[in-house]
Amino acid sequence: MNVPGAEFPKLIKNLMRQARVARRRSARAHLPLNLNTPPGTIVVAQDAHPTTVTAFAFGPDRCEERTITDVAQLDALGSDWPVVWVNVDGLADAAMIRALGQRFEIHPLALEDVTDTTQRAKVEPYGETTFIVVPMPHDDEHGFWTEQLAIVVGPRFVVTFQGQPGDCLDELRDRIRQGRGRVRRANAAYLSYAICDAVIDAYFPIVTAISERLEQLEEMVLSRPSARQLYEIRRMRGSMLRIRRAAMPLRDAMSAIIMLDRVFDPDTRPYLRDLNDHVARLLDQVEMDRYLANDLIEMYMTTINIRLGETSKVLTIIATIFMPLSFIAGVYGMNFHEMPELTWPWGYWYALALMALTALGLVAYFWRKGWL
Amino acid sequence: MNVPGAEFPKLIKNLMRQARVARRRSARAHLPLNLNTPPGTIVVAQDAHPTTVTAFAFGPDRCEERTITDVAQLDALGSDWPVVWVNVDGLADAAMIRALGQRFEIHPLALEDVTDTTQRAKVEPYGETTFIVVPMPHDDEHGFWTEQLAIVVGPRFVVTFQGQPGDCLDELRDRIRQGRGRVRRANAAYLSYAICDAVIDAYFPIVTAISERLEQLEEMVLSRPSARQLYEIRRMRGSMLRIRRAAMPLRDAMSAIIMLDRVFDPDTRPYLRDLNDHVARLLDQVEMDRYLANDLIEMYMTTINIRLGETSKVLTIIATIFMPLSFIAGVYGMNFHEMPELTWPWGYWYALALMALTALGLVAYFWRKGWL
Amino acid sequence: MNVPGAEFPKLIKNLMRQARVARRRSARAHLPLNLNTPPGTIVVAQDAHPTTVTAFAFGPDRCEERTITDVAQLDALGSDWPVVWVNVDGLADAAMIRALGQRFEIHPLALEDVTDTTQRAKVEPYGETTFIVVPMPHDDEHGFWTEQLAIVVGPRFVVTFQGQPGDCLDELRDRIRQGRGRVRRANAAYLSYAICDAVIDAYFPIVTAISERLEQLEEMVLSRPSARQLYEIRRMRGSMLRIRRAAMPLRDAMSAIIMLDRVFDPDTRPYLRDLNDHVARLLDQVEMDRYLANDLIEMYMTTINIRLGETSKVLTIIATIFMPLSFIAGVYGMNFHEMPELTWPWGYWYALALMALTALGLVAYFWRKGWL
Amino acid sequence: MNVPGAEFPKLIKNLMRQARVARRRSARAHLPLNLNTPPGTIVVAQDAHPTTVTAFAFGPDRCEERTITDVAQLDALGSDWPVVWVNVDGLADAAMIRALGQRFEIHPLALEDVTDTTQRAKVEPYGETTFIVVPMPHDDEHGFWTEQLAIVVGPRFVVTFQGQPGDCLDELRDRIRQGRGRVRRANAAYLSYAICDAVIDAYFPIVTAISERLEQLEEMVLSRPSARQLYEIRRMRGSMLRIRRAAMPLRDAMSAIIMLDRVFDPDTRPYLRDLNDHVARLLDQVEMDRYLANDLIEMYMTTINIRLGETSKVLTIIATIFMPLSFIAGVYGMNFHEMPELTWPWGYWYALALMALTALGLVAYFWRKGWL
Amino acid sequence: MNVPGAEFPKLIKNLMRQARVARRRSARAHLPLNLNTPPGTIVVAQDAHPTTVTAFAFGPDRCEERTITDVAQLDALGSDWPVVWVNVDGLADAAMIRALGQRFEIHPLALEDVTDTTQRAKVEPYGETTFIVVPMPHDDEHGFWTEQLAIVVGPRFVVTFQGQPGDCLDELRDRIRQGRGRVRRANAAYLSYAICDAVIDAYFPIVTAISERLEQLEEMVLSRPSARQLYEIRRMRGSMLRIRRAAMPLRDAMSAIIMLDRVFDPDTRPYLRDLNDHVARLLDQVEMDRYLANDLIEMYMTTINIRLGETSKVLTIIATIFMPLSFIAGVYGMNFHEMPELTWPWGYWYALALMALTALGLVAYFWRKGWL
Repeated sequence: MNVPGAEFPKLIKNLMRQARVARRRSARAHLPLNLNTPPGTIVVAQDAHPTTVTAFAFGPDRCEERTITDVAQLDALGSDWPVVWVNVDGLADAAMIRALGQRFEIHPLALEDVTDTTQRAKVEPYGETTFIVVPMPHDDEHGFWTEQLAIVVGPRFVVTFQGQPGDCLDELRDRIRQGRGRVRRANAAYLSYAICDAVIDAYFPIVTAISERLEQLEEMVLSRPSARQLYEIRRMRGSMLRIRRAAMPLRDAMSAIIMLDRVFDPDTRPYLRDLNDHVARLLDQVEMDRYLANDLIEMYMTTINIRLGETSKVLTIIATIFMPLSFIAGVYGMNFHEMPELTWPWGYWYALALMALTALGLVAYFWRKGWL
Repeated sequence: MNVPGAEFPKLIKNLMRQARVARRRSARAHLPLNLNTPPGTIVVAQDAHPTTVTAFAFGPDRCEERTITDVAQLDALGSDWPVVWVNVDGLADAAMIRALGQRFEIHPLALEDVTDTTQRAKVEPYGETTFIVVPMPHDDEHGFWTEQLAIVVGPRFVVTFQGQPGDCLDELRDRIRQGRGRVRRANAAYLSYAICDAVIDAYFPIVTAISERLEQLEEMVLSRPSARQLYEIRRMRGSMLRIRRAAMPLRDAMSAIIMLDRVFDPDTRPYLRDLNDHVARLLDQVEMDRYLANDLIEMYMTTINIRLGETSKVLTIIATIFMPLSFIAGVYGMNFHEMPELTWPWGYWYALALMALTALGLVAYFWRKGWL
Repeated sequence: MNVPGAEFPKLIKNLMRQARVARRRSARAHLPLNLNTPPGTIVVAQDAHPTTVTAFAFGPDRCEERTITDVAQLDALGSDWPVVWVNVDGLADAAMIRALGQRFEIHPLALEDVTDTTQRAKVEPYGETTFIVVPMPHDDEHGFWTEQLAIVVGPRFVVTFQGQPGDCLDELRDRIRQGRGRVRRANAAYLSYAICDAVIDAYFPIVTAISERLEQLEEMVLSRPSARQLYEIRRMRGSMLRIRRAAMPLRDAMSAIIMLDRVFDPDTRPYLRDLNDHVARLLDQVEMDRYLANDLIEMYMTTINIRLGETSKVLTIIATIFMPLSFIAGVYGMNFHEMPELTWPWGYWYALALMALTALGLVAYFWRKGWL
Repeated sequence: MNVPGAEFPKLIKNLMRQARVARRRSARAHLPLNLNTPPGTIVVAQDAHPTTVTAFAFGPDRCEERTITDVAQLDALGSDWPVVWVNVDGLADAAMIRALGQRFEIHPLALEDVTDTTQRAKVEPYGETTFIVVPMPHDDEHGFWTEQLAIVVGPRFVVTFQGQPGDCLDELRDRIRQGRGRVRRANAAYLSYAICDAVIDAYFPIVTAISERLEQLEEMVLSRPSARQLYEIRRMRGSMLRIRRAAMPLRDAMSAIIMLDRVFDPDTRPYLRDLNDHVARLLDQVEMDRYLANDLIEMYMTTINIRLGETSKVLTIIATIFMPLSFIAGVYGMNFHEMPELTWPWGYWYALALMALTALGLVAYFWRKGWL
Repeated sequence: MNVPGAEFPKLIKNLMRQARVARRRSARAHLPLNLNTPPGTIVVAQDAHPTTVTAFAFGPDRCEERTITDVAQLDALGSDWPVVWVNVDGLADAAMIRALGQRFEIHPLALEDVTDTTQRAKVEPYGETTFIVVPMPHDDEHGFWTEQLAIVVGPRFVVTFQGQPGDCLDELRDRIRQGRGRVRRANAAYLSYAICDAVIDAYFPIVTAISERLEQLEEMVLSRPSARQLYEIRRMRGSMLRIRRAAMPLRDAMSAIIMLDRVFDPDTRPYLRDLNDHVARLLDQVEMDRYLANDLIEMYMTTINIRLGETSKVLTIIATIFMPLSFIAGVYGMNFHEMPELTWPWGYWYALALMALTALGLVAYFWRKGWL
């Protein structure tokens, strides 16, 4: 059973602390930044990363990448290229974010949500532009957590805002650079679809890794159950819950996106439907894994219960056999002056025989009861 | 484990009593005041606070604050200023409330709901005016409770009614005084939005505090579980349930508010959608915390179960080893006159060896069974 | 813990018997009366109360009350007064009910439902008249039960049918007699609203009484838990379930009533919306109490589980300490002729010291394990 | 407690076997007959009852009953009478069923469903005719099971198909013969309503019998709980689940039937609404009984848990008192040559006093802990 | 009880490994193949089966089967026959799949889904063609798993793609060859219906086999419960969950198919409704079996709990009787020089009588408590 008294808390506390870090990063325990400020105020978090802005302009034939330090640099790009993708890494520079907001006519409320990274997935149309928030998945030694990716889609541009450098869009960037797939020939709306697609696809390896770890744990629970496994299963259940919480509004957002017929042309529609499908599969897999995790926990508890019953049975058998025997020995250990059996020549053997018979009788009784 | 027999009820009873106070303040155990009165009757609670009326008139450029003792004072304000916000603290003065109702043409049923502070969050259009009820959150040493805030929105005025002085709107008042944000330039509908926004934002610090306390408790449950923690977790679960109960109708009300296109102009619409979003995030966070609290309770129970199994195992091992040994000692403690072993020169050592072998055999058996 | 072996069934059986009586009165275990009869047949229950018919005619200025023995008496009243409210107490007189049905052109199916008092709350339009069934709440020493109140609303009359004399409408009657509120000046539809309102308001004192008893029980469970409390909590949970079962269709019915725009004029609409609100609050409170009851039961079971673990721990500690000590005593109680220790001058003290050391070692072990 | 080790399986196995028979009869474990056949093929079950066809023609004034051996006999009846009800008992004669199908222009898929008696309740319009499937309830010593009743409603005829002779429609037939109720004066659609009504009414006595048995069991569980009751409650829960499973699609079907405004004239509409109502009440009652059954099972388990705690407590008290006493006796039973107490004149009494004091101390300790 | 300590993991591990194989085959733990590729890319799995393409052309009078190695071969068939059914077994040949996609104008996204065999059931219209995915059920020694069947329906053709040779459509092929049923006379849309029908029908034998095995297990759990059964029931519950997960989107897809009125003519509509019905019955049966499986697991756990209580009771009775007896024996085994009882002539008999009386008293006590 391996439930050591002293060392298990250490192992398990580590597990739990990791889970806590992941939970916090998933932004759920943060206060929204814009409490007590007028709606539409940009508030920058204390620990925000410094801001870097890069522009990625492309057309069917060529593409150009440039680091932006002044918003004015974007004007030339905007007039030269069919689609410009501006990516903002790090949200510490409120002035730059405000400047971008003015340049691309982003609604103040959308701009406020860009820096307040505790949003749920959503899709909101604001006049010419559409504001999309999707949670980008991360998985490290602490478990699953999400980073907010805000996407502003305009007629000829896409602006993405993320809290930290490093994302799951590099493959998409390579595709644009090398001109693979439809993206170079398509418009800004298609680019926003491609970004959402890349984000959703990034969930699958994480969920699959959880599935595989759960199957390893199943094997381990069956071979040598230990409390450590129980807590690890529980931690994974927590991760899956967070994935589910991230993916449920994502599903609603992806359903809402299909309705935006002003933004997406009919050719892009099947691709959006495909996005929907992916989120549904993701949720399906998470549900199956949650079922598996619950089943494992239940299996662990069943094993403990069965063992408790078994332990209790062993104790009962032992006690029931030896208590009468010890009693007989105790009787003939009494010091009364007149105890006829003590003087019998075969007294000792008689006592031993009495004990043996008692023991046999009890064993037979347990046999009949099906306890042996 | 620390489950002391006598003193734990005291600690826990205190916890529970506090929870009860919070529950009661949340107005759920009260009888509605207007039972057995004709609909539309204003009934004042016995323990209602004395009424103070203040008016806050403002326009794009200036603002004016005044304490109102006579409803007639409001006429001048109403004609001079674009927006007048009348705030009523304390609901003891039925005459004043009735006068305000007549002055602002508030429907009798709405006026009745103003004093009967057991309403759920709701939005009801009555002709020109709209009646909104939102629960204002409070959190003190007793846990979470809510105070009813009734808002009447008219073309150029907003009247708010609350049971006690002290609310979460001071920051908004400062904003009006200092002319920060859009509110001074906007109409009465926008003011009502800003009030709702401030109320909903006031939930977040409370929920975040609960989250943080739960994480502390998780740490404590893992280090040294005690029954006290169990009851504190349970109390927090109760608080979260009350928050959820308050926020669910709030969500419905905020969804309903968007439909009121007669009241809110298109520019305010995105702000209302933002309100919706905030309530959704609030509910999300409460759900995550409820999950965490349930998980902690389950973890506590699992720990107790594992310990019970462990205790039972230790008992069984001890009993199973010492009962046969004591039996052997008992046998050679019998007083039969003829017991050959007793006279053997090495009899004592033989008996000790027999005991040692028995003990070793049993230990080996438990080893093989994986119990040691 | 107080789980007495013999006397507890008696107390608890009484509780359960009372619960059964309440359950039966709530009409759920009855067969519908009109099985195996053509639809629309009026079947009178064996134990139906004798029928008394009273008429209550009123207008803005005056009102008149009269006992009706012949349906013809109603013709004069109907032509003299704007609204006539005919109340039927007791459903034994099928002829009278049939006569009323003809007089007011009540649909045969509605008339059938009047005497078959096992209906759920519902609202059904039949041409000119509307048929409403609401369950009137009762609460006595047996717990919560409901009595069916059938309301037929016509253009200028309201007919109410109830199984027993005594209802929650006396306050409304007083209001009509004294001309308080809107009811005297309003039409028949408003009267039917006022009746429904009075019925729904009658639920609140019952639910509040349950809430208060639950809080007393919470206090008691914490001070001195006993099985009796467990069963009383369970009984209350049963009552709340019945209230919920009664109120859920009531909510649907009250939602349906708002749709009847042919019956209710726009001025009455806000009042109906208010009814809806009341039912929602009722269900809210019942939900909170159900949560509290479940929490109390869970708390009770947790306490039992914690005590079981504690008992088991005490047993293990005692057995683990005394079994080795008794074994040592047993060894030196053996009667071997050659036992060197027995002849040592300090042999006895050596044995006692050995025992003390063993005991101290075990206590230290338990201390380190955190069991003491 | 009465949990005998050997004989309880026999009693319980019988209960379970009966439950299995009922489950099977409810047609849920059968393969659909028409697997691997082209859609619309009539497949006859191996164990189908031989087919008997009877016709029941009626008009407002008279009626005529006749056994049909040749479909041609129906032509005369069809032209002479306003409504003809053809009832088919037993589904072994595929040729006859096919002939009826052609005579009444029944869609091949509907005809296929007639012989495949594993359908859920449904209502399907096929051009001029409507196809209705309802499960007829049966209750015998094995528990609840259902028989499929297929109803084909045409402009002037109703054809019913059932697997076995014997149904719940005899009362309806009597009503037609004697001209009671509306049915003789109404059309074929009304007849189909009357049949559905009779089927749904047949559920009520069964559900009521279950309710009553559950109340008996509640009494028994409280007086002398035994495992047998547990299994009987569980069997009833199984029956109720089957009733629910049968009634849920029935509710949907009855809701769908109201939509068929081509089939049912406005006068019949209130009757259909009444059907809906009956199914809702049925489901209500089943829900209440399921709650009661679950509560009884929970109560049983609680009782077992409380007793386990009590047993454990008794054991702990006994062991904790006698182990130290036996240890003291063991100490003074040691055979050391030098044991001062043994030679004290009052040594024996001193030892007895020591034991008594120890015992008293322990009893006092348990008293203070509240265990006695 | 049969919970052997060492050998049970082996048996159960085998069960669990089989379950894992089935789970994996059901494609849920796979990563989607097309991660990190542009949308619409055909990616072939490493372990894909080699591709074989067969064409099945038919008209009302004749049919022709041919193996296709070059897509050009299909042109002649397409012009000669009213309906051509192209079946692709094995998905390793990306070039062939791409060629078929061009020949039949299949949308790139649909073609991508063909090779990525982790799709949920779905129905998607793409211009002239409709893309359907249904999971084909398989059941072998590992339990239930599904294989993806992709169906492309065009005006005069149906293309089906499956991962492995061997399917549940042979009966349908025989029907076409022999001209049984409607399929030879109908169009491509009807053929796609017939394929879906065959797939759904293939679920029934599997579900029925699970039902029957569960009933065997119920019998076994009642006769001689063993942990092995518990794990087998759990495995079946896992299978049923997978069936449910496969069938739920299938139900949605089959509901969606009815909406495609451009594809299916009114005559085929009733057949599609029938499909819906079959899926609903399937889900019904799975629900009932899941209930049964859960009930069996609960029954097993109840049995263990009852036995634990019984064991505990036996232990308590034995200990409570023998501890006082042994104590008495211990008292008279003390070696005090002055113990009056020891010298009494009938001392020994007095001691035995004392013991007998104590034992009788305790037995009587337990009798009265109802423990014997």
